[in-house]
Amino acid sequence: MTPEFSLIAQYFHRDKDVKTKGLIVPNGDDGAVIESLPDSSTVVAIDTLVAGRHFFHDANPSDIGHKALAVNLSDLAAMGATPRYALLALTLPNADSFWLSEFSAGFYALADKFAVNLIGGDTTQGPLTVTVTVLGDVPNGGALTRSGAMPGDSIYVTGEIGTAGLALQVLQGNVNLSDDELALLSPNLHRPEPRISMGVALRDIASSCIDISDGLAADLGHILERSEVGTDIELDCLPLHKLVRQQVVETGRWHLPLSSGDDYELCFTVPTAKASALADCLSGLRPGSPVPFTRIGTVTDKVGVLRCLQADGSSIPIIANGYDHFE
Amino acid sequence: MTPEFSLIAQYFHRDKDVKTKGLIVPNGDDGAVIESLPDSSTVVAIDTLVAGRHFFHDANPSDIGHKALAVNLSDLAAMGATPRYALLALTLPNADSFWLSEFSAGFYALADKFAVNLIGGDTTQGPLTVTVTVLGDVPNGGALTRSGAMPGDSIYVTGEIGTAGLALQVLQGNVNLSDDELALLSPNLHRPEPRISMGVALRDIASSCIDISDGLAADLGHILERSEVGTDIELDCLPLHKLVRQQVVETGRWHLPLSSGDDYELCFTVPTAKASALADCLSGLRPGSPVPFTRIGTVTDKVGVLRCLQADGSSIPIIANGYDHFE
Repeated sequence: MTPEFSLIAQYFHRDKDVKTKGLIVPNGDDGAVIESLPDSSTVVAIDTLVAGRHFFHDANPSDIGHKALAVNLSDLAAMGATPRYALLALTLPNADSFWLSEFSAGFYALADKFAVNLIGGDTTQGPLTVTVTVLGDVPNGGALTRSGAMPGDSIYVTGEIGTAGLALQVLQGNVNLSDDELALLSPNLHRPEPRISMGVALRDIASSCIDISDGLAADLGHILERSEVGTDIELDCLPLHKLVRQQVVETGRWHLPLSSGDDYELCFTVPTAKASALADCLSGLRPGSPVPFTRIGTVTDKVGVLRCLQADGSSIPIIANGYDHFE
Repeated sequence: MTPEFSLIAQYFHRDKDVKTKGLIVPNGDDGAVIESLPDSSTVVAIDTLVAGRHFFHDANPSDIGHKALAVNLSDLAAMGATPRYALLALTLPNADSFWLSEFSAGFYALADKFAVNLIGGDTTQGPLTVTVTVLGDVPNGGALTRSGAMPGDSIYVTGEIGTAGLALQVLQGNVNLSDDELALLSPNLHRPEPRISMGVALRDIASSCIDISDGLAADLGHILERSEVGTDIELDCLPLHKLVRQQVVETGRWHLPLSSGDDYELCFTVPTAKASALADCLSGLRPGSPVPFTRIGTVTDKVGVLRCLQADGSSIPIIANGYDHFE
């Protein structure tokens, strides 16, 4: 093993120090062995970030480490799962110690926050690409999916939508904002916060749930498709940063909040009968982890129809494609 | 979703047709939900193949699909696990329908052979990189690891070693062989066969096990390190293809069988008391899946010392670094 490769290993071998219930054979063998929790099922998801596509080549490596894990944890949140383990496949052009130190710090800071144990990985030489696999638990039968929404259910989103998208537009030179203004938006793009506690709280309340990675319209579209319903979105209810709202007003276009990706917020539906449970549950949740959420519309019986209503009741046409991976 | 992206999805969405016990929420949600088997633990591993590093840019896409899964299944084999699920993170420069068709055919042919269900994935645009995560099961406490070898145990390998390495040397122009000769070696390089049935059979027999991906010396070195033992390898016992043996004779160097990577065979140790169990078990295994295996040496109490003995009892010096990912 060359000094370079030893260097990499040293950044990702903390597992001997982290004693985790359920982890039988930690990192260092051909695979990791994990014990199943009683009465629980395992939720597993995988996501890749590619340099030049999902982040700038010169992006802060700590942000890349954070985001590579965060977008995966966001998938677990959308399933109502409690995260437990991660595996990291890191392809790097070279073994740069500063980069590795920063990347691993960003990755582990988020992992520690949610008690996620890195139990395996692979490091290869090549164009910068980061793939993370996460594993979590849900009680048997308790996973949230995209397929349970019913007409009459209310639709909610957490946090704000379009904020990360506007930050990206500024960084790409398509929109001019001051550095101070950009600084208000950037955390949403670079360091999305996976809505884990919200996902867990919604297990017995939400009828469907998804995380918004490709834009609200596209991801809500998946709920429509899988649940065989429609939705009416009230545009005035969308939770927007004031700078996003300003863009909507100036351009007269709703593209930013509806179709830019990278929000990593949850979009979920709740039956009317569960509305008070939602309020109780989430007010209980807030002191520890204050997750804002907003009602944005209603599920309808118009299968496949995603209507966006303005204050006067008229609807705007939208193209529900969101961020397309190969556009 | 653009036509291109729809095209990709169509190659990897067979799961509605594959009814698998234990798979509760299949592909299509943010994550997949899998049920735990009673009295079993989950084994998980991840491996990446990078174009230009692990395969040639113009490699047969069916071979790439096969190998991306095979190298991961080989990790499960080394743990004695029964494979169950895979997730595929595919980064592609463009959505080429021929490439995707061939790649998915190679991937699924191997997946079907071992009843592995593709339960999730991510497709991104960028330099060609394939990361696969696999999940399998072992009975609680039954996983094979690198850490149980004891002095006196016999050391075995499956199949042949150095064959894939020689094929690569020919393809890189470092060794001259005829096309017919290359054709005899190539399957070991392009389509390694994960030793799943052997791994499962070894659960109660082997004291340690690893798969040979970085070369016998390097991988056996991991057993030495984790088990805190040494080994004496009898070079004349190594199972070599006649063309590999010819290279060893011609060059006087043992590099090919000892230190070229890509074998994906199992190297395992067996206590003397289990020798007859090994013979019984593996003779029972052979009719259905004829896996050749060869005794190549003995575990010693010389901690960390990997000796390679020639027929006259003299030993050759080796550098046990194998294939280094960043050399």
